[in-house]
Amino acid sequence: MEKDSDKLAEQTNQHEKDPETNTLHQPLLKKNHTLSSSQLALVGAKVSRNESLDYEINENDLFKHDWRTRSQTQVLQYVFVKWLLAFLVGLLTGLITTVINLAIENITGYKLLAVVKYIENQRYMMGFFYMTAVNFVLTLFATLLCVFFAPNAAGPGIPEIKAYLNGVDTPDMYGATTMFVKIFGSIGAVSAGLDLGKEGPLVHIGACIASLLGQGGPDNYKIKWRWIRYFNNDRDRRDIITCGASSGVCAAFRSPVGGVLFALEEVATWWRSALLWRTFFSTAVVVVVLRAFMEYCKSGQCGLFGEGGLIMFDVSDVPVQYHIVDLLPVTVIGIIGGVLGSLYNYVLHKVLRLYNIINAKGKFAKILLSLTVSLFTSACLYGLPFLASCTPCNRSAADSECPTTGRMGNFKKFNCPKGHYNDLATLLLTTSDDAVRNIFSTNTPGEYSVFSLVIFFVLYCILGLFTFGIAVPSGLFLPIILMGSAYGRLLGMAMGPYTTIDQGLYAVLGAASLMAGSMRMTVSLCVIFLELTNNLLLLPITMLVLLISKTVGDCFNPSIYEIILDLKGLPFLEGRPEPWMRNITVGELADIKPPLVTLSGIEKVGRIVDVLRNTTHNAFAVVDNTLVPSVGQMSEVHGLVLRAHLLLVLKKKWFLKERRRTDEWEVREKFTWVDVAERWGTIEEVAVTKEEMEMYVDLHPLTNTTPYTVVETMSVAKALVQFREVGLRHMLILPKCHGPTVPPVIGILTRQDLIAHNILSAFPHLEKSYGTPKRC
Amino acid sequence: MEKDSDKLAEQTNQHEKDPETNTLHQPLLKKNHTLSSSQLALVGAKVSRNESLDYEINENDLFKHDWRTRSQTQVLQYVFVKWLLAFLVGLLTGLITTVINLAIENITGYKLLAVVKYIENQRYMMGFFYMTAVNFVLTLFATLLCVFFAPNAAGPGIPEIKAYLNGVDTPDMYGATTMFVKIFGSIGAVSAGLDLGKEGPLVHIGACIASLLGQGGPDNYKIKWRWIRYFNNDRDRRDIITCGASSGVCAAFRSPVGGVLFALEEVATWWRSALLWRTFFSTAVVVVVLRAFMEYCKSGQCGLFGEGGLIMFDVSDVPVQYHIVDLLPVTVIGIIGGVLGSLYNYVLHKVLRLYNIINAKGKFAKILLSLTVSLFTSACLYGLPFLASCTPCNRSAADSECPTTGRMGNFKKFNCPKGHYNDLATLLLTTSDDAVRNIFSTNTPGEYSVFSLVIFFVLYCILGLFTFGIAVPSGLFLPIILMGSAYGRLLGMAMGPYTTIDQGLYAVLGAASLMAGSMRMTVSLCVIFLELTNNLLLLPITMLVLLISKTVGDCFNPSIYEIILDLKGLPFLEGRPEPWMRNITVGELADIKPPLVTLSGIEKVGRIVDVLRNTTHNAFAVVDNTLVPSVGQMSEVHGLVLRAHLLLVLKKKWFLKERRRTDEWEVREKFTWVDVAERWGTIEEVAVTKEEMEMYVDLHPLTNTTPYTVVETMSVAKALVQFREVGLRHMLILPKCHGPTVPPVIGILTRQDLIAHNILSAFPHLEKSYGTPKRC
Repeated sequence: MEKDSDKLAEQTNQHEKDPETNTLHQPLLKKNHTLSSSQLALVGAKVSRNESLDYEINENDLFKHDWRTRSQTQVLQYVFVKWLLAFLVGLLTGLITTVINLAIENITGYKLLAVVKYIENQRYMMGFFYMTAVNFVLTLFATLLCVFFAPNAAGPGIPEIKAYLNGVDTPDMYGATTMFVKIFGSIGAVSAGLDLGKEGPLVHIGACIASLLGQGGPDNYKIKWRWIRYFNNDRDRRDIITCGASSGVCAAFRSPVGGVLFALEEVATWWRSALLWRTFFSTAVVVVVLRAFMEYCKSGQCGLFGEGGLIMFDVSDVPVQYHIVDLLPVTVIGIIGGVLGSLYNYVLHKVLRLYNIINAKGKFAKILLSLTVSLFTSACLYGLPFLASCTPCNRSAADSECPTTGRMGNFKKFNCPKGHYNDLATLLLTTSDDAVRNIFSTNTPGEYSVFSLVIFFVLYCILGLFTFGIAVPSGLFLPIILMGSAYGRLLGMAMGPYTTIDQGLYAVLGAASLMAGSMRMTVSLCVIFLELTNNLLLLPITMLVLLISKTVGDCFNPSIYEIILDLKGLPFLEGRPEPWMRNITVGELADIKPPLVTLSGIEKVGRIVDVLRNTTHNAFAVVDNTLVPSVGQMSEVHGLVLRAHLLLVLKKKWFLKERRRTDEWEVREKFTWVDVAERWGTIEEVAVTKEEMEMYVDLHPLTNTTPYTVVETMSVAKALVQFREVGLRHMLILPKCHGPTVPPVIGILTRQDLIAHNILSAFPHLEKSYGTPKRC
Repeated sequence: MEKDSDKLAEQTNQHEKDPETNTLHQPLLKKNHTLSSSQLALVGAKVSRNESLDYEINENDLFKHDWRTRSQTQVLQYVFVKWLLAFLVGLLTGLITTVINLAIENITGYKLLAVVKYIENQRYMMGFFYMTAVNFVLTLFATLLCVFFAPNAAGPGIPEIKAYLNGVDTPDMYGATTMFVKIFGSIGAVSAGLDLGKEGPLVHIGACIASLLGQGGPDNYKIKWRWIRYFNNDRDRRDIITCGASSGVCAAFRSPVGGVLFALEEVATWWRSALLWRTFFSTAVVVVVLRAFMEYCKSGQCGLFGEGGLIMFDVSDVPVQYHIVDLLPVTVIGIIGGVLGSLYNYVLHKVLRLYNIINAKGKFAKILLSLTVSLFTSACLYGLPFLASCTPCNRSAADSECPTTGRMGNFKKFNCPKGHYNDLATLLLTTSDDAVRNIFSTNTPGEYSVFSLVIFFVLYCILGLFTFGIAVPSGLFLPIILMGSAYGRLLGMAMGPYTTIDQGLYAVLGAASLMAGSMRMTVSLCVIFLELTNNLLLLPITMLVLLISKTVGDCFNPSIYEIILDLKGLPFLEGRPEPWMRNITVGELADIKPPLVTLSGIEKVGRIVDVLRNTTHNAFAVVDNTLVPSVGQMSEVHGLVLRAHLLLVLKKKWFLKERRRTDEWEVREKFTWVDVAERWGTIEEVAVTKEEMEMYVDLHPLTNTTPYTVVETMSVAKALVQFREVGLRHMLILPKCHGPTVPPVIGILTRQDLIAHNILSAFPHLEKSYGTPKRC
């Protein structure tokens, strides 16, 4: 018996509610060990709009026929379109990233130039008002877009992509509106000087591009290109979205290998060697596009867009010298990074819960929250540099201009006299990318005072915690890098006399350690940092720092993405079963679910309509009962028929006057496999007359004859492994006994039934039977 | 009915036979659609010594009890040992690699110094004899070790590791003897100047270290440390061996991230995020060890061991400048690399088949073959440089010494007058590593003449093809890099006027293209090349070259590792089912297998002995039949019992006088879970008296109650996906019908049943039903 209460219409506003109040944590009924006829299953009682994806190949007669008759040309078309899509995903992600980068650098640049001019003329209040006003308007713009057009565009989007690739679809997440809001909202929010990055949003934009291309355009204006119809299934969409996510990471960090690994390590649930290769192709295209535009911008035709190369934060000019004795500071960085990272996760979790309550109060509250954060940010960024004292330029060390009055460079003049620079202004009154570049800058010991770095660190800790949850597109990478780099550089200064490693490299290591402490990635972060900084010799130390930080962080709490997934209530299937799952069988789960609804191979129309109206299940077992003379009653599992296909039959009115098996050609005449791949609305849209109710439908040709199965004695732990590894939406439970009175199927398992939280709410004693093992 | 004909004693010499004549390709019986009682199953008729591994968790009563009672401390012990082993694997791999490197560099170095001295004194014949004799002795040493002590140590070992991680164990592959032969054989073979690398052997050595550590020492001297016993299962061994393989690659190329990715992309079949992290830890340890030794060797205490840093072939000193127009030469390199790579695979396949025939003729033939190759190699390496003309040193370009007479440097004097160098001797009379370094050298246009490079390329094509199959440890990486770099540099010279890319970089790209064309990896090769050459700006071009080469190569034939796997007849389960597998059900496979052997839950000792003697199956279905009053005969699948556990019962004589169910404590008193994890020899070693034969055994507590199952209507394609993704050794086939006469289980599927080749030999019409899709 299957419980996919995905589509309950009354729940359409669920998504905007506070995730903490969602029904996942409140089972609708108490545990009840008898078979219940209620339509509300106990296990899997969560009611959400999220739909499960179906990666299984639905082997019914139509599919098999189509498969058999598919020509070599069609197979080649399919392969060609697959690669074409991977190419287009890379190309468009590259182009859109370039547009975003150009817009942000120009808007921020001109804004800051104006502010600098006011300061030079000592019109400090005017500068403050100008900057605050511009930031205010930009934030308002981003928030309005998010609040009114695409609430899903708020936040980074990475947790939702992770859930999608695990098999949970969030509606309206990958549409054209969401994408455009994400693009323009991101430009607005980052230009407004808020403490958030464009990295997360870029990953989401990549996924949107992929999704739109894969389905042939926005929902209402789909291209009806024949070739694209091969992609009308969840498996191929999953692959394309993986390409999109990798391209997004690649575009954000200009890191093609890191992008692939990020998708592999953090985002994707299933992975194949072929996909590795295709993803790699997409990211290669992204890099080529980005590089071509940078080449073009070198000629000065991109306004204030900098002359940056492919490497964002190059620190390769410093020779890396380290010895065994340097293992100590490296360990210290790692441990502190892990502690700080998990502390950040903890506090951010609390803040997000608070913000959810505020945001749930309505659109006005959301807008107000964003604007408050914007005002606070502007005030701090503008006001704090006045606290820092001016430092005289050190002519010998700096071969760059000092003080700089233009937009780039390490030594901002701000309010200082000639020949001096304000180190805090250098870090605060600039784009985030430049701030990172400045704080990573090597061979510049003594450039920043401890005081300025402490202020910077504390400020970004506060901003990082309070900016993330507001209703604008926001990434987590950059805020964490900013915090981490400040902390690293401070630590480097503290260790000054005892180490041979440059302070700029300490900043890099600090950023890496905080990332690992919060996001808990290793290999992909390592490669991303390598590609960001172009210093291969730093690799062994970076690896150690990442490993230590991740280990320390894992002792305290889960990664930030898992925390957000949990907050959003997305039914994410973990790869590793909980230990107590060995102690319960799928039969026990089936027992507390409502009885299984089975259909006969040749079923009355009336019963089908009845079943569809009265249940919300997404698939039904099809069972044939025959009386074999001299043997007795035989029953046979024919397979699993999907709700969508039953709706298809009803809509196309493929009814039979008498109870009979149809011939193969009959079904093929009526349905194409394109019909079969479509989703067919709801039962309410179907009109069936009274006479038709008495007619019959032959379900055999539409039934998936090869559903995956488990026996009722199977432990939930092993069933979960099968469910996840094979990528299922439904799994039949078969009885262990064979005999005259035993039904051939006793239940259907779905994703919701296997979520640890749902099982525990029905069987609370299980958790106590084993101490949950420590995380580290 | 299960067919694991792994252990047939008469087949012990199978492994050394020509793989082409092995029984995989000659089904023992013709197809027969009736149920057969022969013990030789038709599907899976291959008889080999390779044993399948069992990654499934055997959930019997003993396991469950142990699991339940396992304390928090024991869980922590387990986690600690897991990380300790990963650390030790990295440490030992690093140390052994250092020893191998030191030995090879010193032996080769002193050998070449002596040869150079003879040439300086114009004693050319004496030089030739000296070099040939030393190479001869070294080759003989390596060959004798391989032939007499560990035949499995010949070759790279990577295909066998790949098969192991797919679930196929090759006996004597990871023992102490094999490891030592591999270490010393590799030193001998590489020092002998043969055209083979130490990279493949290092991967195998890493895997051996991991395997030995995981099982607590060599087979005869295992440490009985209590903590190590947690690792007495195939799952944990698989994880450790993955760490070992990654460490090996890392040690070979000093490429920690590349090592992890190589294991992920090429070697491993299953992969989890947690494993990624542990593997990464191992490779980090390897790098730290290697780096520490290099630091130590800088002080000159390692003999002739060079002053190399962590980056083997550094080309970072050349600025990478390329424009859109450079895409053309890059495409050309990729296409030619792909064609050459697949051509290499094709010819190598033929050569290996020829060599297999020669090697099958006995130990003497093997030795003779090795020595012939050694003599030929020596003659070419020494003789060919005399053909090259001397080039005058270009004082302005070269800031290094010219000509060099010592061991390092780009300009070997050889037979040339003062102020001149012999470019071919520079490439041939040196270690392979130095040859690659020389040919990759940047900013040296015109250093090598076309003539010399052509000779070098042709020579290494011939040597690369004829050296690989001889009975010494040999890696494929270096020969392919040597060939590829020569081809790339030649191409670079040909394109000279039309390109802005340095010739050294062309050599790098050529090597990458040939690797991708032959081995068909992308991401891991890309990272390995990045870590080898330390030129991040080259990354986008490298990616394109790799993608193009792989695509082109895939159009012609499978990767070199797949070819070798096929030659060795290892039953490797591909991840992707063949298209025709949708057209056959597992029920049809079960039909042509001999009838299923089932045991009762409480079985007579006599019948167990009988079944064990007369079948070779590795697991048996346990079925309980009970007559329920007023309902009728009920039968119940209890699960699957392993041959090893039946042997355990017989050996420990856990017999019952009467037919009864035992209590939980009875079995626990007799067996510990350590017993259950052991392998218990053969049935021939068991002595059972006549009275005992009449007694009973309660199989329930030893039966795995949660085997994975499929219904007989399941298509083989989907069954294969489940089998591979979940990592199974046995899968029960259940009937689709339920009724009075239907048995509860109708068959057991094993790995051999799902191998495409085996199915096709029983159902030859299947392949024709679908055109096999093109590879590209």
